Amino acid sequence: MSEALADKAAALDAADELAGLRKLFALDEAVYLDGNSLGALPSHVPDRVADVVRRQWGELRIRSWDESGWWSAPERIGDRIAPLVGAAPGQIVVGDSTSVNVFKAVVAAVRLNADPARTDVLVDATTFPTDGYIAQSAARMTGKRIVPVDPADLPAALGPSTAVALVNHVDYRTGRLHDLPSLTAAVHAAGALAVWDLCHSAGALPVGLDAHGVDLAVGCTYKYLNGGPGSPAYLYVAERHQDAFDSPLPGWNSHADPFAMTPGFEAAQGARRGRVGTPDILSMLALEAALEVWDGVAVESVRAKSLALTDFFLECVEAYAPKGRVTSLTPVEHAARGSQIALRCEDAKAVMERLIARGVVGDLRRPDVLRFGFTPLYVGFADVERAAAVLAEVLAETPAAKTPEQAPEQTPAD
Amino acid sequence: MSEALADKAAALDAADELAGLRKLFALDEAVYLDGNSLGALPSHVPDRVADVVRRQWGELRIRSWDESGWWSAPERIGDRIAPLVGAAPGQIVVGDSTSVNVFKAVVAAVRLNADPARTDVLVDATTFPTDGYIAQSAARMTGKRIVPVDPADLPAALGPSTAVALVNHVDYRTGRLHDLPSLTAAVHAAGALAVWDLCHSAGALPVGLDAHGVDLAVGCTYKYLNGGPGSPAYLYVAERHQDAFDSPLPGWNSHADPFAMTPGFEAAQGARRGRVGTPDILSMLALEAALEVWDGVAVESVRAKSLALTDFFLECVEAYAPKGRVTSLTPVEHAARGSQIALRCEDAKAVMERLIARGVVGDLRRPDVLRFGFTPLYVGFADVERAAAVLAEVLAETPAAKTPEQAPEQTPAD
Repeated sequence: MSEALADKAAALDAADELAGLRKLFALDEAVYLDGNSLGALPSHVPDRVADVVRRQWGELRIRSWDESGWWSAPERIGDRIAPLVGAAPGQIVVGDSTSVNVFKAVVAAVRLNADPARTDVLVDATTFPTDGYIAQSAARMTGKRIVPVDPADLPAALGPSTAVALVNHVDYRTGRLHDLPSLTAAVHAAGALAVWDLCHSAGALPVGLDAHGVDLAVGCTYKYLNGGPGSPAYLYVAERHQDAFDSPLPGWNSHADPFAMTPGFEAAQGARRGRVGTPDILSMLALEAALEVWDGVAVESVRAKSLALTDFFLECVEAYAPKGRVTSLTPVEHAARGSQIALRCEDAKAVMERLIARGVVGDLRRPDVLRFGFTPLYVGFADVERAAAVLAEVLAETPAAKTPEQAPEQTPAD
Repeated sequence: MSEALADKAAALDAADELAGLRKLFALDEAVYLDGNSLGALPSHVPDRVADVVRRQWGELRIRSWDESGWWSAPERIGDRIAPLVGAAPGQIVVGDSTSVNVFKAVVAAVRLNADPARTDVLVDATTFPTDGYIAQSAARMTGKRIVPVDPADLPAALGPSTAVALVNHVDYRTGRLHDLPSLTAAVHAAGALAVWDLCHSAGALPVGLDAHGVDLAVGCTYKYLNGGPGSPAYLYVAERHQDAFDSPLPGWNSHADPFAMTPGFEAAQGARRGRVGTPDILSMLALEAALEVWDGVAVESVRAKSLALTDFFLECVEAYAPKGRVTSLTPVEHAARGSQIALRCEDAKAVMERLIARGVVGDLRRPDVLRFGFTPLYVGFADVERAAAVLAEVLAETPAAKTPEQAPEQTPAD
């Protein structure tokens, strides 16, 4: 819609050092801006999954537990994720869903901070809901109480009654990035433990779990890590906490000697203590294959491109979209922005349906948020310009329902 | 090794109404008697998984949550498993590991039986270890205590302090089948709830969950259900308990309106209440495909063949094996036998290694148990005769270390 912005997009794409990674993914004509919900398929994954199914399962069968490395996959893949979130090896284990890992992490954090005067589990009030629901259960089952706190108010809310704080690194709805280093330091200064949910940050920006002294963390692998639908989540337990990590889900896979099959439980050392039951091999090895697209990719480069993509999207939307039809909920300042842009739009549902029909795929967060995720491994600047142009077209074609304020002569029923 | 037994095998195979099912599986020359650990690959599964990966994930991407039926898979696949375990639709949900489902089931059962005088959770003392470890955690987190009880002693151990009994339907080690109808009735007569672990029975014999009034049950899907390595487990909550089912893992997938994303939790109705986080789609849909081999197969026929297979194996071992080298731990009476034979053997580890090298695949349960699973969908009677013959050869070639009793002139160090 604007030659200047199209030219700018071309120039940005030409200078993009990550542009070559796009060819690693199975993509089509659509502009896929929903990699913050489900990452695209890396093209080599189907053949790898086929090998797992046909040869490892179909031919080797149980021998694969050793010969194909099935048994050790949760730790091995954890170590592959570790550099993406700034963790040294031996602290991350892959398995179960994010929700289940939130339960492990919150219960274990409460047990690590056993002072009975510390009665409170502070939970990000804007959290993705599952974290709040699960934290509530963890609190109920450990005799604590939940205190919902906006992350901005967390430092003031911390105190001698705080046991644990559970915070999302990036808000799933608005794309706001919370300040992990300073909030973790504040939690520690209050004598509490910090549990971070990295679902919307891992693979999009540097996390620095070790550098910032995070206690425990969880994250999913099907967004920026492209592990596939519902691929297993992960749990980070800082090395200093591992010996005292006391899981509420001490399944046989977390036993020091699982095949001894003894009635008494003795916890394994290290990251394996975070495992529970038999690992879900097909999904886990699809994830392992998918992580290969990160070979040689620095998260810092990804972050730089992510900010450039979201800056450019905001610029194009500002230039193209009818005034007043959308308002960004995502902070302008880089330090507070994840890798998505959330636009409030009165008729968001209808707009998103039309966008998708025209090949621009984002998603809706009810009732009125258009959410666009920017995955630097496979989204380019021309995609961004096109997405903004199509959005502007759709918005121009579908005027918002008149509100009484805009059109006082209309009745609310219009 | 015996023409008579080889002839008998041929006659039994010729009369086997399930014999035609073997061609549905990817099998080779080996006699695979480890389907009670990891079921064989149904031959159509690789193409189905490839479609899930390439088309559903790679092309449709997030649209597949609706268009490919991803979102409803946990209940849909639960309903596919239901007839195999004697459950009406709407009571089984697939997802998470068996261990995680044991946690849900035991905690929920304790909450369903809220009388504070009922302080005890009785757990099968011979249980697969993970059930015991997890039940211990569930008891710890709900203020109950664990009482380990041999299933044979369960009726006597039940009483006014019993809240819940957790029992394995078939013992993973010995293959002993516990009497689900009578034990469930005894548990109910004591005013307690019965939670059954069906890992080693579902798909091998009729379970009759509804008919026998079981309260809650869990099971895995990678043994007799052939779902693939680490495929998702399932949870059964009897319909009469669903409204009061209070999960310790109330993830967003168990919310009445997950996409409302409200901070307050409101539990879904029905089986979906047993869900937790985002379902693991690749593994789940591999399982769904694998279950198609059950189309038109009656579990009663499977049970009849299973008993014939294990009877015949015992007969062949008795005829072929050197006297005194192995002793069956599996009950002779049909009513107490699952679908495996466990043979105690002093040098079990070395024997199993040699068996596997010669194409007879069972497994070892430390220290001294040779375990052979008989999966009626793809194991035939000639397989059984061959397995016993090879076992006899191996045993004859590798005389057991002499024990003082057998060879009093030897020292124990021999």
